[in-house]
Formats: sequence, C-alpha cells, structure tokens
Amino acid sequence: MTRNAPIRRRSDCPLSIGLEIFGDKWTLLILRDLMLKKLQTFKQFQDSGESIATNVLSDRLERLQKQGIVTAARSSVDARVVTYHPTAKGLDLLPVLVEIVLWSARHEKTAAPPKLIEKMTRDKEGFIQELRGRFSVS
Amino acid sequence: MTRNAPIRRRSDCPLSIGLEIFGDKWTLLILRDLMLKKLQTFKQFQDSGESIATNVLSDRLERLQKQGIVTAARSSVDARVVTYHPTAKGLDLLPVLVEIVLWSARHEKTAAPPKLIEKMTRDKEGFIQELRGRFSVS
Repeated sequence: MTRNAPIRRRSDCPLSIGLEIFGDKWTLLILRDLMLKKLQTFKQFQDSGESIATNVLSDRLERLQKQGIVTAARSSVDARVVTYHPTAKGLDLLPVLVEIVLWSARHEKTAAPPKLIEKMTRDKEGFIQELRGRFSVS
Repeated sequence: MTRNAPIRRRSDCPLSIGLEIFGDKWTLLILRDLMLKKLQTFKQFQDSGESIATNVLSDRLERLQKQGIVTAARSSVDARVVTYHPTAKGLDLLPVLVEIVLWSARHEKTAAPPKLIEKMTRDKEGFIQELRGRFSVS
C-alpha cells in the first residue's frame, strides 16, 4: 500500500473500466439523447421516451460531467436554462452507440429506419464523422 | 390494444432495445470473458477478476441463453461440466466490445497492451474477424 495509491478500481481491464464509467442503460440512453437526438436540456432528456426517473437523470448527468464526458452551460436563448453538451471524450463514444444500434437492427425488431441503417452500415466512419460535425467541442 | 400485442418494450428505439438485452455491466463482462478471454465455464467466469456474485452470474447466463446470444453444452472433456459458447448473434456483439476497449484505452489509464490496441485501431475489421474465427458457430 502506498500513500498515493490510485482510486481502487475493480479491474484494470479496459472493458471493465469503460463499463464502470458509462456501462449502465440510463447513462447510454442519455448519451444517445445528447449525441444522436441532439437534445440538450434536463426537461428534454426526461421527456425522451423511456421515462427516466428525475433522481437517476440528475445522478447520471453529474457523473458524466465528473468523467469529462459532458459539460453544462447556460443556454444562450434563456440563461435560466442549463444545456448539456458532449465533450471530445464524449463524442468518442459515438462508435459504441452506433455498433449497438447496428446489432439491434440486425437481430431484433426495432423502429430503426432501414435507410438510416443501410447508410450506417455502408459508411460507418462517414456517418460518425457527420454526427461529430454537428457539435463544436473545445 | 390487439390480442396479439407483442411483449411491451419500454421503447422501440434500437439503442434502447439493445441495452435492454445486454446493457448492464455484468452481462458485458461475461461476454468479454466468453469472446475475448475465451473462457467457457461457470467457474472460469466466477474467477475472472471482477468478483461477480454467483446469483448474478447465473441470472445473466440464463438471460443470455434466452436471448439466443449464448448456448450451453456438456464439456467434451468432462460431461459433468457445462460449457458456454457465443452464438452468431453473440459474436455480432464483438464490435461493441472492441469499441468500448478502444475508448477506454484512449481516455483512461488501463492495462491494455499498447501493441494490441495499436492492432485493433489499425485493422479493426481484421481483428474482429480473427476473434470470430476462434469460434465455430452453427
């Protein structure tokens, strides 16, 4: 035991570490709302379809900020409103989201528009670049 | 309401559906053990490093079988032992696992061997094909 021991992690496996950070369903749905649906406010996330509980949403947004995946800012339209935005580290999760969508579209009955899935399959990198281009990150 | 209404899902979004099926940390760690570490038995999964609880492991293995992601068989070496194997549907989750590993290796301090990460980055498709080739699926 050293005095400057790092925060104990369950494992140093990269998959395990990633899952500790964002590997729960609600976190990934918030990231979907933020990066695929381009939603920005607490209210929008709440109304996004899966009935996320307020306390869960608060908790996950706070954790995502602590992890440097999401930043919060005052809305330029209404300064009383906080808007959330993905960081560069957050946008790097787009490939994870895209692969989950592609798997589900292939193996399950979903509402994914076939044309969109076809586009994602044909040019995955281009599709991700297009999504990235919708955000300006510092 | 029709009489043959499908099982109610929280959403028909492909991302949400995928996450309902495999979107919890333990399920994804079991899939890692199965497909990246090539472990096969209950005992091996238990000893794999993250101290998964027995009841959680049982539950997740059962769910993965119900979803057609994993199959169980008697070991050819010792018929008293059950071995678990990914199906084709399961192997199609390899890209999700690989993207999580790449994200963590890029943004967090992990034990991922740099050479392996470099190989995964340079030829992601080839790397996934190589992993697929280690399993024979029906």
